[in-house]
Amino acid sequence: MVKLPKTLEWKENALFLLDQTRLPLESVEFRCDTVEAVSDAIRRLVVRGAPAIGVAAAYGVALAARSGRDAIPPALTLLAESRPTAVNLFWALARMRGAYEAGASADDLLAEAREIERDDRERCERIGAAGAELLPARANIITHCHAGALATAGIGTALGVIYKAVEAGKDIRVFADETRPLLQGARITAWELMEAGVDVTLITDSMAAFAMARKSFDAVIVGADRIAANGDVANKIGTYGLAVNARRHNIPFYVAAPLSTIDLEIPDGNSIPIEERGDEEITEKFGVRTAPHGVKTWSPAFDVTPAELVTRIITDQGVVVPGKEAIAELFQEKREKASAAS
Amino acid sequence: MVKLPKTLEWKENALFLLDQTRLPLESVEFRCDTVEAVSDAIRRLVVRGAPAIGVAAAYGVALAARSGRDAIPPALTLLAESRPTAVNLFWALARMRGAYEAGASADDLLAEAREIERDDRERCERIGAAGAELLPARANIITHCHAGALATAGIGTALGVIYKAVEAGKDIRVFADETRPLLQGARITAWELMEAGVDVTLITDSMAAFAMARKSFDAVIVGADRIAANGDVANKIGTYGLAVNARRHNIPFYVAAPLSTIDLEIPDGNSIPIEERGDEEITEKFGVRTAPHGVKTWSPAFDVTPAELVTRIITDQGVVVPGKEAIAELFQEKREKASAAS
Repeated sequence: MVKLPKTLEWKENALFLLDQTRLPLESVEFRCDTVEAVSDAIRRLVVRGAPAIGVAAAYGVALAARSGRDAIPPALTLLAESRPTAVNLFWALARMRGAYEAGASADDLLAEAREIERDDRERCERIGAAGAELLPARANIITHCHAGALATAGIGTALGVIYKAVEAGKDIRVFADETRPLLQGARITAWELMEAGVDVTLITDSMAAFAMARKSFDAVIVGADRIAANGDVANKIGTYGLAVNARRHNIPFYVAAPLSTIDLEIPDGNSIPIEERGDEEITEKFGVRTAPHGVKTWSPAFDVTPAELVTRIITDQGVVVPGKEAIAELFQEKREKASAAS
Repeated sequence: MVKLPKTLEWKENALFLLDQTRLPLESVEFRCDTVEAVSDAIRRLVVRGAPAIGVAAAYGVALAARSGRDAIPPALTLLAESRPTAVNLFWALARMRGAYEAGASADDLLAEAREIERDDRERCERIGAAGAELLPARANIITHCHAGALATAGIGTALGVIYKAVEAGKDIRVFADETRPLLQGARITAWELMEAGVDVTLITDSMAAFAMARKSFDAVIVGADRIAANGDVANKIGTYGLAVNARRHNIPFYVAAPLSTIDLEIPDGNSIPIEERGDEEITEKFGVRTAPHGVKTWSPAFDVTPAELVTRIITDQGVVVPGKEAIAELFQEKREKASAAS
């Protein structure tokens, strides 16, 4: 088994989070005994990554429930206001609210949070196993940003594929893009892969294309923030340019994400809203001013990779060549499985 | 006339350099009264950019000559040891040595340095004028790294094209890649364009491809560190990936450089030696540690863009579609002009 850091853990009647603001230089736990502590941890990015935030919030509701039923509605509100974007947060809170409204006890709510954590872990396992089969016995891989264990309660999505391949005895080497402006690749992906004992080399985003030209790669694997019904993929800024270069070099480009990341309400990538960030992430991130005062910036947090550049989308419900019909079929199969099971 | 910072200036019987180590936050002059001061300035990157280093070194020899003829040979040695790579440094020193060996006085050597400065300025003007004609009346441009006035004694190469277009009344907007790892785009290109009053927007390198997808661009213009006989271009890391994305979006990709950057001894890009840099430029540049201790890196300082991705090379001897024959013809024309003039 690959050794992975614990993003979160319920123990000693409290929620313990690995404090991601201290990575990669320090590895310390942050203990949450109250819903306020959980909300603060989500706001300050002590815990980050959409699935991990959802699981942490569920435990936050369970912590509030120890103060009595009246504490639960304000806890749901507080947690819902802690981050605006991650759809998993609202999904997890809706599940906890449903249990509360059905009369769940504090113990029941803790059990529900544990169930949400287990579900997330299982989704990661299924994504990882499905993706690992796509990789050859020796594989050189490029990844961008961070879609690993620390973003989920499990082994991650893009990095989950890598961990499952390593467990299957495959010989895997990873080049990790540092991922400007916030350097999630340098700060988190590189750290997590090193902890897991996976061979990792850190490069700037601008080096990936030349790495493709001068070295041999078998796959690019990334996560996704939102996938449209036609298979267009919104992911961290830099993903699109990487996909264009992967196509030039005939390197398979894989996107690993749970089915819940696919938004059937969004017909294509042009309809995905793209958050633009402030100047300071480019001009003075990490406390050092490196650009002229007053310089204009353009700073989209995400970009859109058209489906035609994506070789496969790897989901917890199976692997698919992106396209409207193929994606619709995935959802159809899921409904049929659910109905057969019930 | 576009207002440009003075990279270097001979005045008050001394060489004044704009201290580029203090940019973009401070704009201060560094006065050199001795060859030792010039050598120190080149070593510490107070002055940088291959053409600018050559001109500064020539003035360094002129400063040494004021102490008598015996001071000149050690000055030539000292300056030659100040930076290893820039071919212009050795070219300028060879020219000064030639004048010294022909019996030039201290005044003659100062005149020779001024002539070297004037030649560099004229080459930039010719490149700029030739390139400006390629741009439409309204042009949105992406540039990478820094190939501007501060790298030369004149208006620069890639940015020289932009300045000449602005002077010709064209409406120019520039997106500048920050250019990791050393951020020459953020620290120098953005500053120089703002000083010149040119509309500039700073982006991370990873944003350029998505900018091409979401906005409209008329050209990518970059400089070059070395161009092979077949037109393959070595330039700052990130140039190749940018060229691949420009091709996908059918955006003309221009390389602006003096003819002296073309190395006819090098048949193609595979033969250009590529310097690899140390870990710390990626992991802790600018005094902040942002990657795990002990992480491996791969850090090529340059990459190679194949000639087929380069729309035109803009030189001081004319504009050429890159290719072995076309480039050989440029050199032939130069020889014919020189022989007609003599």
